[in-house]
Amino acid sequence: MLRVPADDHLAVTVRVLTALGAPEAPAREQGELLLEGDLRGHASHGIRRLPVLAGRIRAGLCAPAAVPELDWSTPAVLRVDGHTGLGPPVAHRAVEALVERGTGVAVAAIRRAGHLGMLAPYVERLAGAGLIGLAVTTSEALVHPWGAAPAMLGTNPLAVAVPTEGEPVVLDMATGQISRGKVLDHAHRGEPLPAGAAVDASGAPTTDPTAALDGAISPFGGPKGYALSLVLELMVASLTGTALGREVRGTLDTTDPVTKGDVLIALDPAAFGGGVALGPFLDELRALDPAPGHAGVQIPGDRARATRAANLAAGVPVDPGTWAEVTAL
Amino acid sequence: MLRVPADDHLAVTVRVLTALGAPEAPAREQGELLLEGDLRGHASHGIRRLPVLAGRIRAGLCAPAAVPELDWSTPAVLRVDGHTGLGPPVAHRAVEALVERGTGVAVAAIRRAGHLGMLAPYVERLAGAGLIGLAVTTSEALVHPWGAAPAMLGTNPLAVAVPTEGEPVVLDMATGQISRGKVLDHAHRGEPLPAGAAVDASGAPTTDPTAALDGAISPFGGPKGYALSLVLELMVASLTGTALGREVRGTLDTTDPVTKGDVLIALDPAAFGGGVALGPFLDELRALDPAPGHAGVQIPGDRARATRAANLAAGVPVDPGTWAEVTAL
Repeated sequence: MLRVPADDHLAVTVRVLTALGAPEAPAREQGELLLEGDLRGHASHGIRRLPVLAGRIRAGLCAPAAVPELDWSTPAVLRVDGHTGLGPPVAHRAVEALVERGTGVAVAAIRRAGHLGMLAPYVERLAGAGLIGLAVTTSEALVHPWGAAPAMLGTNPLAVAVPTEGEPVVLDMATGQISRGKVLDHAHRGEPLPAGAAVDASGAPTTDPTAALDGAISPFGGPKGYALSLVLELMVASLTGTALGREVRGTLDTTDPVTKGDVLIALDPAAFGGGVALGPFLDELRALDPAPGHAGVQIPGDRARATRAANLAAGVPVDPGTWAEVTAL
Repeated sequence: MLRVPADDHLAVTVRVLTALGAPEAPAREQGELLLEGDLRGHASHGIRRLPVLAGRIRAGLCAPAAVPELDWSTPAVLRVDGHTGLGPPVAHRAVEALVERGTGVAVAAIRRAGHLGMLAPYVERLAGAGLIGLAVTTSEALVHPWGAAPAMLGTNPLAVAVPTEGEPVVLDMATGQISRGKVLDHAHRGEPLPAGAAVDASGAPTTDPTAALDGAISPFGGPKGYALSLVLELMVASLTGTALGREVRGTLDTTDPVTKGDVLIALDPAAFGGGVALGPFLDELRALDPAPGHAGVQIPGDRARATRAANLAAGVPVDPGTWAEVTAL
């Protein structure tokens, strides 16, 4: 891994996107999201995504200067049309609108926005304003429904941030057992997948990453995880008017218009009465003796913050091949 | 299993609760929820709960004639104080208020209500009114956090119903891998637990149900399921002003005041633009060839509806010992 200064990392994205017609501000917001991905150790949501983004702009599928359209259809329901703009600026405008709303609960349903990238930064912004933030988004069908072979569901990530007296608790997880990027990495290195991570083309569980590429990723948590992923996909499609299953597009290719959707929910504990101290309970969990074979209890968000701080100090880890590709852009 | 006519099942609960001071209407609402549990094959949420309910009323911990207090603190935020009344009537008043609201999204935060029972019937009512319904509730600490041994989290169930052109999709799942009732059943029969369902007192995975009773239930889906359960518990506590972890009470004992909380969320697809057909995608999933060893893809809610219809026709299945106990009451 190369170690790249954060400013250089950001500058590459901004230079590439502004050269392709993006104004400085949205280019910077996109760059910051890619930087967050690499800073937190999720290269799959890092600057590795820039070539596809650039390709989508060149193909006319993403309009990096688009201004999103925000429409409050009720006092608490925000409909957002991204007009095929970059994802982070669209989602940031939605987050800002939710924060200012003051209705105690408000929901933004976003369509025609580019890939949002990691969801954690958005719900963290909501938590930073004292709100519980939830984000869920659909994505290309890579995950099989429980009981059948074909990939019919997205990895449909869910992020939740809950403000506390200290740092927020931040969950950011895909509902797939493993990412497609990790399957590709395992195939590249010839290493077996963890048991239960994927099925082959017949639907039988496999640890062979090459067979998994012809098959599908498994949902996390078996039938319950499948059911959760399905209802999230239905909910996002229903609220945003976007696509389902194999019709979902917008984050992986440079050929198809975006048809995925994103939903952000903000809840203000103060409007509900508030005043519950969450910190002591979290500290109690952190202080528990580790179970055999474990290092102790992780509070969601703690590890990402530690990784981020370490990488800010040591330099942003970027795969040399990726760095060569994006700097060549 | 005995097969009991649904009317007799309902009559037993109504007679017991009215004799203990409940008015007819809330007694009936409670009875219907217990009936739904048994009708759907979830005896743990069926009439087996009646003795504890009766015990809580006798102990003064549940006031079956209480009138819940509903307060819209914003146009979309409903605060509900159940005044220690029976759970179903409190939650039904909240559901009715959410349905009538017309704000596109609205949230009810409920405290001091008795055990709601199965969550599916509440979100089904919301879906019946064309709304996406979500329900989440905290419960007594029976589940260990990932990485440590002690039970510190509830089985924290989550229910989601999404209206479609036909029957709604209805997810209703605990975030624990298995229920405590099932661990007790396995211990009673001397049968091993499924792998991964529980840990012993040291935190090591065990399939011995007796060791599991001294240990804790595992979260479904490993670390992701743990993280999901934790953020749901934090969210409910934060919005309802109720307890966390080992302080959560109200559904299992006849000694402690209720300190759990419940959150209901209603989202109106029509307010978001609506008009997405979900049925064809669901039918596509149902029609997929089964993977090896599977019977095909289940859409959440289908099986519960089929079980319910079969049990309505054949009689409600009730354990003979349970039936003897509740009829003696």
